Amino acid sequence: MSEHARPTAGGEFDLIAWIAARVAETARTPAALLGIGDDCAILRAPASRALLVSTDMLLDGRHFVLGRDGPEAAGRKAIAANISDIAAMAGLPLAAVVAVALPRQDTFSLGQKILEGMIEPALRFGVALVGGDTTAWDGPLALSVTILGETTARGAVRRTGARPGDAVVVTGPLGGSILGRHLRPEPRVFEAISLHQRADIHAMIDITDGFVADLGHLLEARSDAVAGTSRGPLGADLDASRIPIHDDARRLAAQTGRAPLNHALHDGEDFELCLALDPADLASIRAADPALPLFYVGEISGEPGIRLRRDDGTTVALEPHGFDHFKF
Amino acid sequence: MSEHARPTAGGEFDLIAWIAARVAETARTPAALLGIGDDCAILRAPASRALLVSTDMLLDGRHFVLGRDGPEAAGRKAIAANISDIAAMAGLPLAAVVAVALPRQDTFSLGQKILEGMIEPALRFGVALVGGDTTAWDGPLALSVTILGETTARGAVRRTGARPGDAVVVTGPLGGSILGRHLRPEPRVFEAISLHQRADIHAMIDITDGFVADLGHLLEARSDAVAGTSRGPLGADLDASRIPIHDDARRLAAQTGRAPLNHALHDGEDFELCLALDPADLASIRAADPALPLFYVGEISGEPGIRLRRDDGTTVALEPHGFDHFKF
Repeated sequence: MSEHARPTAGGEFDLIAWIAARVAETARTPAALLGIGDDCAILRAPASRALLVSTDMLLDGRHFVLGRDGPEAAGRKAIAANISDIAAMAGLPLAAVVAVALPRQDTFSLGQKILEGMIEPALRFGVALVGGDTTAWDGPLALSVTILGETTARGAVRRTGARPGDAVVVTGPLGGSILGRHLRPEPRVFEAISLHQRADIHAMIDITDGFVADLGHLLEARSDAVAGTSRGPLGADLDASRIPIHDDARRLAAQTGRAPLNHALHDGEDFELCLALDPADLASIRAADPALPLFYVGEISGEPGIRLRRDDGTTVALEPHGFDHFKF
Repeated sequence: MSEHARPTAGGEFDLIAWIAARVAETARTPAALLGIGDDCAILRAPASRALLVSTDMLLDGRHFVLGRDGPEAAGRKAIAANISDIAAMAGLPLAAVVAVALPRQDTFSLGQKILEGMIEPALRFGVALVGGDTTAWDGPLALSVTILGETTARGAVRRTGARPGDAVVVTGPLGGSILGRHLRPEPRVFEAISLHQRADIHAMIDITDGFVADLGHLLEARSDAVAGTSRGPLGADLDASRIPIHDDARRLAAQTGRAPLNHALHDGEDFELCLALDPADLASIRAADPALPLFYVGEISGEPGIRLRRDDGTTVALEPHGFDHFKF
């Protein structure tokens, strides 16, 4: 890390000193042994012995529009999107480090405002902001957050465990987040942990590329670089009438001329969770905790592909055409 | 993380699949329980219970020049510079995640080459590449690496522990890294651990902003956001004749007209370590392991400021004017 406490008026070290003071509130957690001010932060390793790590880079013009949304929104989204990745494993967030490339204009105040946007979600989800790196450059704002979390005693929920016959469930209404909701993700950390305490969640993913695309990732998840596990392909049968459609999807549909359902199925950055579990477990969770937001949308099938049963009884194959960050 | 295994010809998911296969070799370590392909990577938390975290963002035009140095050099430097932060705490690297904003031109091959540059240092220092995030955009290349490490049984060496009378030591010749050496850092991981096994290193920092500037950081390190510890200011007395001057500093001096010593004192990105320890410990370490590269350059003083004793017996006060990433 490049953060040092030596002030230089309006310079990098000034900003770092300001940030170090501002984030102190977030770092009053048992996990944070040493925050900003040395070559590394020091964290107490989780007693559960399994650590979760995820990184996201948010870019001006791709994930937010600085001139329209403002730096606070960029900071908030960067932290919250990373927290959502921890939620998708049914983990508990611990700490984060932030690296930022700042445009040369108003560098100092820009850095401050980005950080301000991070504080509220960091405090609310127990994320100690323990380190970072700041540089000014001639390029647009780039904001990279790496989050660390720990698994609960129940272990991590991966994408790979779905089984034929599982219920497919989402944790909230979908679609139209581009109208502004995508800047204020509500990571489903506590919902995921609560679900995972009550039952064996077979597979889970957060909805960022779009519900159908992310369900596709979950169905296709079968191997990874470390464990090299393997399982056969899966599919899913969805009920059109069951897909929870966000009001934003309806508002957006009025502008685009597409169906609200289409937005719910394919829009990105809902930051809700999509999970697969035994239908009997779903029923018992609902009985035990009716307040948990759980929308049953269909079931896992042994037949590859994602199919949508429409209200008129016909079935259509859905193509996962989620967001490819190389194209837009 | 946004990495998924679903291939889209030449798209984001193609690159991610390629990367996941390519980094598998680095992830065959006990620490890496789950690599690329889920919402988070999963690491086995270190038995020592203390985890080191550091992040650096490297930017085209600031930390490398893509058109001149090439993407492999950018990738290599990004990993090695992060490893150096772990070395500065006398820690052992474990794993890293990489977030990259790729220019739209030749996105796929650019991503591949950056990753290729990371493999060799990752393998050599035991860094499992376990996750990442890739996005194409209209901006220049931005490359963010977050590294995780663990402390040895001896614990972390911080910046804060220097004492009056300590010997100030650097691990190699300094200056002129801008001629090319800054792209190929040789992190002093094994040297730092070896030193720390043999003696109590009071304080340590890696030289990135410039030797005098980083020694300044070490002297001024007195508080941090987490622990809130406090200690009085320190200074240092350096011997001009003892400063190890790199051949690159002499070559650069021939171009700049400045003294080679000036480059050794103030140039950045040497990625050597600067440490403070008891002089008696320095003597015993040297006797026990003459191969360790240790250059005694002066001593810690209770009087604030950094002073240089010149060969003619006069003394000059040194101003830490290291690299401020907001100015250039």
